[in-house]
Amino acid sequence: MSQLKKTDLTTIKRAPDRGSFDLDTIHAILDATPLCHIGYMVNEQPIVTPTIHWREGNQIYWHGSRISRTLVESEQAPVCLTVTHLDGLVLARSAFHHSANYRSVMVFGRPTFIEDRFEKTAALTALIDKMLPGRWDTLREMTEKEFAATSVLSLPLSEASAKIRAGGPSDLDSDLDFPVWAGVLPLTTVTGNPVPCPHNQTTIKTPDSLKDYQIG
Amino acid sequence: MSQLKKTDLTTIKRAPDRGSFDLDTIHAILDATPLCHIGYMVNEQPIVTPTIHWREGNQIYWHGSRISRTLVESEQAPVCLTVTHLDGLVLARSAFHHSANYRSVMVFGRPTFIEDRFEKTAALTALIDKMLPGRWDTLREMTEKEFAATSVLSLPLSEASAKIRAGGPSDLDSDLDFPVWAGVLPLTTVTGNPVPCPHNQTTIKTPDSLKDYQIG
Repeated sequence: MSQLKKTDLTTIKRAPDRGSFDLDTIHAILDATPLCHIGYMVNEQPIVTPTIHWREGNQIYWHGSRISRTLVESEQAPVCLTVTHLDGLVLARSAFHHSANYRSVMVFGRPTFIEDRFEKTAALTALIDKMLPGRWDTLREMTEKEFAATSVLSLPLSEASAKIRAGGPSDLDSDLDFPVWAGVLPLTTVTGNPVPCPHNQTTIKTPDSLKDYQIG
Repeated sequence: MSQLKKTDLTTIKRAPDRGSFDLDTIHAILDATPLCHIGYMVNEQPIVTPTIHWREGNQIYWHGSRISRTLVESEQAPVCLTVTHLDGLVLARSAFHHSANYRSVMVFGRPTFIEDRFEKTAALTALIDKMLPGRWDTLREMTEKEFAATSVLSLPLSEASAKIRAGGPSDLDSDLDFPVWAGVLPLTTVTGNPVPCPHNQTTIKTPDSLKDYQIG
């Protein structure tokens, strides 16, 4: 692999096509799913792990086991956190102009562990309450052992950018009357009916707020 | 970042929790969405790009512009291609046992460009026909310029593994009678109604086969 100059990396990080550095756009894309993919490096090998993330202000968080190798190795090491929504398949008149509609955010940085007890509790509370508002306070309290076994990493959104493609096919004008169907097949993520654990006490009803969970 | 031993990387690559090396499982997870996330390394920085992939047998493919820097740099360089389906949020009685249901595949390897004209055409045909069977033959033919501008990369599934979590919360037995709702909020990806391009000739109907498109 030939070496890139520093400026080239800056280009990749900072000037995406269809790109945006607008924080509202970045927040909206990050908040629309808990799933991200984080790229770490271990022994010259990129490792991309699916991870649950959450955001507060201009800070993004994820967590894992205190003894997770990728988590421990990633502290202060360069990572790339990417969130993508696949919004549709774009079918054009030529193979070349087939495409996909999507919203994506890439965040670069060197994550740090949250060591402060108060901050870590606040972060874990936010993780749970973003699934279901107010849920943290209804749960069996976290034990010291569980708290210690959980690591929370965090990254500022100072090096984040969004990339969006939306709309119909971008065919050549000369292809527009080619006799084949062109258009978009939209894709969306939806919630299904909540599946209660069979051990739930019979008096416990499924929370209405689960219906309000937003994804996509 | 401390250095890992070679054996440690092997552990990460080959022995995931909840893991499987069963090729049918790996194929099914890869085929259930065209979206993957590929981790490259550029100047010691991991870059995770959302990418459209497709599979034939035990080979996985993606494509891009011939002049794409990440594509060019990635040939013969180590990459990690990850596909993830987020299938549900798992709400437990304790914060610690909250989880997510998912199906995921990680593929490691050093990709190569497909240079052979016949193989490259076959690969691009497969990309289009996996969206909509038979579509390639209905399109305006690819020009030499378009063909040359498109690069196809490929990776064998020889270093691939699947990781799956399914089912309800794994609470401690001692928490099972804690008075809070526990269960799963399922998440699925669905197709919407096709949106025809306004330039389509009026005689062209929306193909029925779009309704058969499977995702998730």
